[in-house]
Amino acid sequence: MIEKLMEKIRETKAPIVVGLDPMLSYIPESIRAESYAVMGKSPEGAAAALVRYNKLLIDAVCDLVPAVKPQIAMYEQFGVAGVAAFEKTVRYAHEKGLLVIGDVKRGDIGSTSAAYAAGHLGKTVIEDTSFPLFDEDFATVNPYLGTDGVKPFIDVCSACDKGIFVLVKTSNPSSGEFQDRLIDGRPLYELVGEKVEEWGQDVRKGEWSEVGAVVGATYPEMGAVLREIMPHACILVPGYGAQGGTGKDLKPFFREDGLGAIVNSSRGIIAAWKQEKYAEYGEKRFDEAARAAVLAMRADIAEHVF
Amino acid sequence: MIEKLMEKIRETKAPIVVGLDPMLSYIPESIRAESYAVMGKSPEGAAAALVRYNKLLIDAVCDLVPAVKPQIAMYEQFGVAGVAAFEKTVRYAHEKGLLVIGDVKRGDIGSTSAAYAAGHLGKTVIEDTSFPLFDEDFATVNPYLGTDGVKPFIDVCSACDKGIFVLVKTSNPSSGEFQDRLIDGRPLYELVGEKVEEWGQDVRKGEWSEVGAVVGATYPEMGAVLREIMPHACILVPGYGAQGGTGKDLKPFFREDGLGAIVNSSRGIIAAWKQEKYAEYGEKRFDEAARAAVLAMRADIAEHVF
Repeated sequence: MIEKLMEKIRETKAPIVVGLDPMLSYIPESIRAESYAVMGKSPEGAAAALVRYNKLLIDAVCDLVPAVKPQIAMYEQFGVAGVAAFEKTVRYAHEKGLLVIGDVKRGDIGSTSAAYAAGHLGKTVIEDTSFPLFDEDFATVNPYLGTDGVKPFIDVCSACDKGIFVLVKTSNPSSGEFQDRLIDGRPLYELVGEKVEEWGQDVRKGEWSEVGAVVGATYPEMGAVLREIMPHACILVPGYGAQGGTGKDLKPFFREDGLGAIVNSSRGIIAAWKQEKYAEYGEKRFDEAARAAVLAMRADIAEHVF
Repeated sequence: MIEKLMEKIRETKAPIVVGLDPMLSYIPESIRAESYAVMGKSPEGAAAALVRYNKLLIDAVCDLVPAVKPQIAMYEQFGVAGVAAFEKTVRYAHEKGLLVIGDVKRGDIGSTSAAYAAGHLGKTVIEDTSFPLFDEDFATVNPYLGTDGVKPFIDVCSACDKGIFVLVKTSNPSSGEFQDRLIDGRPLYELVGEKVEEWGQDVRKGEWSEVGAVVGATYPEMGAVLREIMPHACILVPGYGAQGGTGKDLKPFFREDGLGAIVNSSRGIIAAWKQEKYAEYGEKRFDEAARAAVLAMRADIAEHVF
């Protein structure tokens, strides 16, 4: 799957993933009202609003970017109806030709990680039949449990042509609390980065491995070191825009040839209409505001990275 | 919520949580066949079988133990229908007076962790109304992202009288890969343990804090150290039984007075009927086999711990 992602990045000239992390407050009032009218002011109504909003966003950006990244927490908070909205979002993105990175940050011990991997990336076996279920193309994975928590995901990547991004250095302010602690003189995130490179050895497709890494845009110096440590890993870079990362912070995450990373923006795109800069679009044209924000982000990356 | 758990442990004299981690192969053929007959040999049919099986298990053990711990991965692998089965399992356990530890191992950055916390432990706000959704009593949380990934869960614990168990030292063979690495001469899991104690300071209820810890039964020496480092944390101990932990391994996780830990067994109880030892019950009386396994576990703990 990593080859397909890299190919789409080259085609679109946009190493950008749109984070579909909807908050109800981002969704125009008219969409919410319509959804509540049909489904009630309920978890089902909220879930319907998320799906409607996501579909319009996907329609607006699907020719510009290679992928979207729904953050499952923003759906799971609405219970079963929310999880169904996540599933519908993945399916619609696929219909529109987009790759989907499920930002699920799962990770557990052996057989449990295998269940997550089957449900999110692979197929679940029921008696004599296999069912693809959430069917994302990539999933994010937490490494705290070590190799036997990650390996079942890699097995599914290998069997079903899928990929993962392992959390290495996250974008949040307190990520350093454990991730930066020195072990034999080197920070933990470097050791995790080395493991990412090692885990990916058997699932390389050409230059790149199905095992990528998450490294926050807010830590560009660490990004430079990790780029070296993980030469075959695509780096998924959250933290651009609303979290403080800027275009010039991004260069270290990419190789000299401008490949090797994909940058996420969520709020900065999907709630662009709430920014001063895109106020002209207004609430009703939130999707056009999102498209304008993607174009601006593409230009920002082109200026600083390529 | 931790006070309620401690009280129920004292009442039942069983510091035991039954892990509801069903695999289809554990479920008697007759239950599966009935479910498929109604719902099809499909994710919906599998989900119906899980619910039926769990209800019978809950009926068989609800007077003996304080809590159950459904592992959400085993449900999520069946997609939306599976997640609905998880929700139904939580609800039925509550109806039968059991506390529920949602083994979800979630953890993300700020607003995203807040969404998980709302959905699993608290309430999700939709416009002017709050909805409890999955509504577990406790959830397991991954600490890799540091304080601002864990804090939103603690805020919900405080607001809604709920609790969490933070992964400190997991029971799996490769847990040491990162968790045991030395930082200033001390393993990472000890630093995480210190954070657990610190995070729990503001949510103490009497002797215990709403912030507990997960420490695997397979590592009793580390359990002893962590018991000292986290005097106010209840320790959730997985790894007993099928994973290799035995009764005599458990003592270090408890205080001298026999309090302070709750031991999980999943396969050893819910699939007891597949063991030689409980073969007499046969597939049809799997629930009675589970009850017998709980009684044996209670006796084993009493012998070695109290």
